[in-house]
Amino acid sequence: MCHSQHNFCKPIKIYWQYCIRNGIKKPFTEVIKANIGDAHAMGQRPITFLRQVVALCTYPNLLDSPSFPEDAKERARRILQGCGGNSLGSYTASQGINCIREDVASYIERRDGGVPADPDNIYLTTGASDGISAILKILVSGGGKSRTGVMIPIPQYPLYSAAISELDAIQVNYYLDEENCWALNVNELRRALNEAKAYCNPKVLCIINPGNPTGQVQNRKCIEDVIHFAWEEKLFLLADEVYQDNVYSEGCQFHSFKKILYEMGPEYYNNVELASFHSTSKGYMGECGYRGGYMEVINLHPEIKGQLVKLLSVRLCPPVSGQAAMDIVVNPPVPGEESYAQFIKEKESVLNNLAKKAKLTEDMFNKIPGIHCNPLQGAMYAFPRIFIPSKAIEEAKAHKMAPDMFYCMKLLEETGICVVPGSGFGQREGTYHFRMTILPPVEKLKILLEKVKDFHIKFLEKYA
Amino acid sequence: MCHSQHNFCKPIKIYWQYCIRNGIKKPFTEVIKANIGDAHAMGQRPITFLRQVVALCTYPNLLDSPSFPEDAKERARRILQGCGGNSLGSYTASQGINCIREDVASYIERRDGGVPADPDNIYLTTGASDGISAILKILVSGGGKSRTGVMIPIPQYPLYSAAISELDAIQVNYYLDEENCWALNVNELRRALNEAKAYCNPKVLCIINPGNPTGQVQNRKCIEDVIHFAWEEKLFLLADEVYQDNVYSEGCQFHSFKKILYEMGPEYYNNVELASFHSTSKGYMGECGYRGGYMEVINLHPEIKGQLVKLLSVRLCPPVSGQAAMDIVVNPPVPGEESYAQFIKEKESVLNNLAKKAKLTEDMFNKIPGIHCNPLQGAMYAFPRIFIPSKAIEEAKAHKMAPDMFYCMKLLEETGICVVPGSGFGQREGTYHFRMTILPPVEKLKILLEKVKDFHIKFLEKYA
Repeated sequence: MCHSQHNFCKPIKIYWQYCIRNGIKKPFTEVIKANIGDAHAMGQRPITFLRQVVALCTYPNLLDSPSFPEDAKERARRILQGCGGNSLGSYTASQGINCIREDVASYIERRDGGVPADPDNIYLTTGASDGISAILKILVSGGGKSRTGVMIPIPQYPLYSAAISELDAIQVNYYLDEENCWALNVNELRRALNEAKAYCNPKVLCIINPGNPTGQVQNRKCIEDVIHFAWEEKLFLLADEVYQDNVYSEGCQFHSFKKILYEMGPEYYNNVELASFHSTSKGYMGECGYRGGYMEVINLHPEIKGQLVKLLSVRLCPPVSGQAAMDIVVNPPVPGEESYAQFIKEKESVLNNLAKKAKLTEDMFNKIPGIHCNPLQGAMYAFPRIFIPSKAIEEAKAHKMAPDMFYCMKLLEETGICVVPGSGFGQREGTYHFRMTILPPVEKLKILLEKVKDFHIKFLEKYA
Repeated sequence: MCHSQHNFCKPIKIYWQYCIRNGIKKPFTEVIKANIGDAHAMGQRPITFLRQVVALCTYPNLLDSPSFPEDAKERARRILQGCGGNSLGSYTASQGINCIREDVASYIERRDGGVPADPDNIYLTTGASDGISAILKILVSGGGKSRTGVMIPIPQYPLYSAAISELDAIQVNYYLDEENCWALNVNELRRALNEAKAYCNPKVLCIINPGNPTGQVQNRKCIEDVIHFAWEEKLFLLADEVYQDNVYSEGCQFHSFKKILYEMGPEYYNNVELASFHSTSKGYMGECGYRGGYMEVINLHPEIKGQLVKLLSVRLCPPVSGQAAMDIVVNPPVPGEESYAQFIKEKESVLNNLAKKAKLTEDMFNKIPGIHCNPLQGAMYAFPRIFIPSKAIEEAKAHKMAPDMFYCMKLLEETGICVVPGSGFGQREGTYHFRMTILPPVEKLKILLEKVKDFHIKFLEKYA
């Protein structure tokens, strides 16, 4: 079981140690880490405007420098005014700096075509994962048959399984439909829920949209169905929307759960409890290291809200430079401002590149015999299904390894390409996958995909 | 029960709301928040060199700017080389950037007069509190009589009681000796431990040195006694040393637990499990908002170490700008470097000022009838004992308030000074205290102390 993105590096370490111990020369010159959604580490450049504002906040002497644009200075001054003693070094309120929560609320209103957002419902967080863990923590309770069940998609991002296990809650799996572009089907939600009711108290439904590792983008009908289901079953909806800017396929569009909930009318909007999450780490900015994020929580019971505030206050406050970075994500340059042209150019360059790489990856995988890859509608990963011959499965078992782990280790040993076995995310029994990021630069990605192709063909031959 | 520094603001909010509701005009023009150790919010200026390095890391274009000193640029280049894609925006290893952990180890070796420190034992954290919570989490286990007991000083910093209660562990109180400058006495540790053994399994001994809220600095003999006790009783030692730079009283000196442990010889050094903590938030830098920190953990059982690494990996990595800030705390300018003179001037100015204010506060409190204040040997708080007349205690009870909370609310209402009641930290039954920071600028602090004096005298008269 893979418990975090960072454990994805484990196979590399094990293999390295093995090579060193045995004096083995590797048949490649470079390891390509396609295992983590870590854009800057793969060469993506930071968005200039974001870094300018954070640098100005860090070292306010720069506010007098003519080499920084006026719109960046304005943002920095506003953020600093929200800080005690005008310093990033002061604690902020546990919920985050007021003016940044206001900017988040305005962003959500713009994004959702005017659906109102209340800054009081916004909580700045230490990356999205911190918010997700906090919400799960306050929702989980009870023992025995009344233990809290948390419904998560399979495949899922392993933060969920790790948090659920840490909280001693029950993981309730619902399967995404691989035959149908990893779509979410409400009948499958119902099956999973009804079965789970026999042994726990399912209270939370987690959705990842756009999907990680699966990359599907949910359409409006699907979201309506999910919301209706949550309303009917009184489930707390947890919408992980950190890839909201990462939508590539034509005809696909990001719809926030909050917006659709509102449009379904007051019976839904006033009743369904919803927490949705965003982050500085993905999108076009890829600022993972800042640990910036926010959550919007609506219809939370006042008592539970009190618990949440208390829990968040123990950690004092989210890192303030991460809060500043989040502010720029929700309050970027607008037309007429000095930095607008460069900002849009940089943003579109990243997103257009990702879209190109999404298509390239899908196409190249689907040309490889024994590999099938659904369209990468969004996010930043491919999760292709791989055929593993029964001889290879036997050999894996002899090594006490999951077959897809065996496959990924071989891939690493022979090509230097590091991807994550599907068993780290969960998959239907008897199917095998791996997750690979599409973050390497286009030319490198092409080489990488060619190498996977050669490897896979040889692998099939060897274990035929 | 006060669960965090941030809840210390609660009385202000309640009082504000009350004033607004009732149209009450306040008899003061400004609230002075002397409740949180938040240096920059109280007007302390950031250390220039630290901010220069973080700004250079944030916006590397500045590496070409002639207005930044070369030693700052060197530090920034080194940190960026430790980052994936040379960017603060990449994830780092969960344990923190390698070269920063190396700098931490060198710092500890210098601080401890050559006692070796291994970068593998260093974990960068999101402030010290994150590390303390993580260590407590992996050490706590069992139910019923085998529930883990965690020994904490009374008075204590409320992070401990909050974390212990969150983990469903048992808080085992040992009392510091107020009559003896808040010293720690091993007989009291033994009493507390023996009593606790009847109802739980005491496994962890927490020490805060210099003390918070009590400000005492432990001498070498005391630390040796504590270590011998921990060795004898096989207790895990948790040494909260975030105020290691904040020592003011003549004849007092900071000794790290690690150093004394080493000097006591291999029987101790190879056996006692010790985690010690430091942070960017206190000292002379006061960079709370960066959420930077580290812990050094020695003699940790390999299995427990595995659990720790797994736990830390779920949160991905500590904020990278906080890691960079921590680097400058452990690797500041040295003689011969361009920035040395200014750095030392700024550092000494902050520390000399704090020392002056520590003495001033002690002296002024001890001139007030009904207030006794121990010497503020270190840290950044006074924790004076206050006499509350029985009539006031009765009135507090009628309002369902702890007497010291009643006192602090009255102080706030009448003077605008916000301090924290001793009951938030724990105190011997029948004694009353409050915690006040010494962070306001000297002139403001004098006014504040005069106001407390006037208030206290009137309070005594009113309830005589």
